[in-house]
Amino acid sequence: MSAAKKLRLAVAQLGPVQRADTRAQVVRRLVDLLHEAHGRGARWVTFPELALTTFFPRWSLEDPAEVRSFFETEMPGPATRPLFDAARAKGIGFYLGYAELDGETQYNTSILVGPDGRIIGKYRKIHIPGDASSREGAALQHLEKKYFAVGDLGFPVWDTPDAAIGMCICNDRRWPETFRVMGLQGVDVVMVGYNTPSGYVQWNEPIHLRMHHHLLSLQSAAYQNACWIAAAAKAGVEEGSPMIGGSCIVAPAGEIMVRAFSEDDEVINYMCDLSVSGHYRANIFNFAAHRRPEHYRPIVERTGAGAPLGAAPP
Amino acid sequence: MSAAKKLRLAVAQLGPVQRADTRAQVVRRLVDLLHEAHGRGARWVTFPELALTTFFPRWSLEDPAEVRSFFETEMPGPATRPLFDAARAKGIGFYLGYAELDGETQYNTSILVGPDGRIIGKYRKIHIPGDASSREGAALQHLEKKYFAVGDLGFPVWDTPDAAIGMCICNDRRWPETFRVMGLQGVDVVMVGYNTPSGYVQWNEPIHLRMHHHLLSLQSAAYQNACWIAAAAKAGVEEGSPMIGGSCIVAPAGEIMVRAFSEDDEVINYMCDLSVSGHYRANIFNFAAHRRPEHYRPIVERTGAGAPLGAAPP
Repeated sequence: MSAAKKLRLAVAQLGPVQRADTRAQVVRRLVDLLHEAHGRGARWVTFPELALTTFFPRWSLEDPAEVRSFFETEMPGPATRPLFDAARAKGIGFYLGYAELDGETQYNTSILVGPDGRIIGKYRKIHIPGDASSREGAALQHLEKKYFAVGDLGFPVWDTPDAAIGMCICNDRRWPETFRVMGLQGVDVVMVGYNTPSGYVQWNEPIHLRMHHHLLSLQSAAYQNACWIAAAAKAGVEEGSPMIGGSCIVAPAGEIMVRAFSEDDEVINYMCDLSVSGHYRANIFNFAAHRRPEHYRPIVERTGAGAPLGAAPP
Repeated sequence: MSAAKKLRLAVAQLGPVQRADTRAQVVRRLVDLLHEAHGRGARWVTFPELALTTFFPRWSLEDPAEVRSFFETEMPGPATRPLFDAARAKGIGFYLGYAELDGETQYNTSILVGPDGRIIGKYRKIHIPGDASSREGAALQHLEKKYFAVGDLGFPVWDTPDAAIGMCICNDRRWPETFRVMGLQGVDVVMVGYNTPSGYVQWNEPIHLRMHHHLLSLQSAAYQNACWIAAAAKAGVEEGSPMIGGSCIVAPAGEIMVRAFSEDDEVINYMCDLSVSGHYRANIFNFAAHRRPEHYRPIVERTGAGAPLGAAPP
C-alpha cells in the first residue's frame, strides 16, 4: 500500500544502578550506550524510567533531604548535560526517564529530546502503581504513590520530522487506555521505560508471569494501535532486589522484532518500517469506520468497577 | 487471598457449516456438542458466532428472500428449540451466536441462556468489520457492514448465580474498549464466538498473524480485565473459504489454559478458578486506585484518529 518508510530505533537497557552510584557515573554509562546506538545507525534511542538513580520507591524514606537527592530540579542540569551534548554531537534523539521536582511537586517523568539536543516534549506518569505507605508484613514494598503525584500532562503525541512519537512510563503500559489515547493521535512510535521488580508479588503469582505480562501488554498495544513500541528496562539486581530485563522493539503486527538478552547495559536496534501501520489503519483498525464511542462511555464515567448493567433481553 | 471458586466451562468449536446444511442438521451437531460438554461436567458452553448457518457475509447477496433465509425471527424457533430443551434437561447454560431479524433490522447477535433454558441476556455485535459493498478486485469479500446494523445494547454483564457473565462477538475481541466496559462491571467470564477467515487479507500480511492476533487479543483482554474468556470458533473450510480454529479458554493471568487442536467440531473444557481475578483486582488492576479517567477523554471524544496533542513542554 504505502511506500516503506524506514526509521532505525534503538533501545538502551540499563543494568542496575546502586544507591552509591553518582549521577556522573550513570550519565557516563548512558553516553556510552548512546554512542553504541549511534554506531548502529540509530536515529532515536530509548532509555529506562528513573534512569539516573536506583529505583528508590522500594524504600520508605522519611528524611526529606534524602528523598530530594533522587530528584532533578532542572533538565539538563550540570550532571546530565553531557548526555544532551553527546546526542546533539551525534544527531540522535532520545527518551529519558527521571524523577522530577517541580516546585514542591514530585513526578515520575520522561522527556523526548530531539536530534538537535532540544527538549521536544515532556510526559509525567499517570498510572502510579503500588502504595502510599508501607504494606505491613510485605516482603517487598512498592511505594510509588508515596513519592509521585499523578501526571498532569495527559498522553500527548509529538509530530517530529521522523515520526509521530508518544511516551509512557512503566505501569502505564499495562493499561490499554494509555495507548488508545495515543493511537487516537496517529502515533507511529511509543517509547516506554520501566523498572519492573521480578519478585514483586502481592500474592503467590507464578514468577514467570512478570515477563509474560510485560510482553503481552506491549504486543497487544502495538497491534491494537498499529504502532511501533520501543521499551527499555532498568534490569538486574539493585540493592538486593532483582528486576526483569526484556527490553524490546515491537512491531504494529504485535510481534517482538528484537529483544535484549541480558539484565545489564545492552543496546538493541531495529530498522522499523513505519508504513506497516498504514495497512492496519486502512483496514481492520480503521478507527473512523469501526469505533463506536457511544458504547464506550463507562470507560470515562466509571473509575472503579461498578454494578453489572445487564437487564432482561428485549 | 479469596477462597477458590471453581466453575467448569466448555467451548464447543464448530467445523464448517455449508450453505446446503439445514438448521436441523446444525442444531443436531450443537446438541451433540452440548451433551459432550455436559459429560465433562461443564456448567456453561460457548458456541460460535453465526453458529446456525454458513458465514454468508463472504458473499454479496442481492435477493432479499435469500438474505432473510440466514436470519432468525424468533429464538428459540422450531428449529432451535431442541438445543434449549437439551440444555434445560442437562442443566447447562450456553452462549449462541446467530443472525437476528428484529422487525426490519438485521443484527449479528448472541444470547446467553441459563441452565434452566431461559434467555438471560442478549448482545448485538458493535464492532462490525469489513465493507458495506463489494471491494473491487479483492480476492475475498467481507461484507458484514452490508448485512448488520451496529448493535444497540452496549456491552452489558449479567449477574448469574455462577458468575458475572458478559458477551461479545468476533471482531469485538480486537478492541480493548469491549473488554474494559465489561471489566468496569466486574465481569468474571466473557464468552465470545467468532468466524475468522484464515485467508482474509486486505494487504500481504503474513498468514500466521491471523492466529497470533486472535490469541493476543484474548490474552491481553483477560489479563487487563482480570477475567476468564471462553472463545469458540466456527472453523475449517466453508464453501471453499478456510477459517481459523484456535478456540480456547484464557485465564486472568493472560495464559491460554486449553485450546482446540482441530478445525472441526470439538469440545474443550477447563475447571476455572474465578477467585484468581480477585488477586489482580486487589493489586495491579485495582481500577478504583489506579485508573485516571480524566486522562482518557479522547477515547470517547474522538472516533477516528485526530491531530497530535503534543505541545512544547512546560
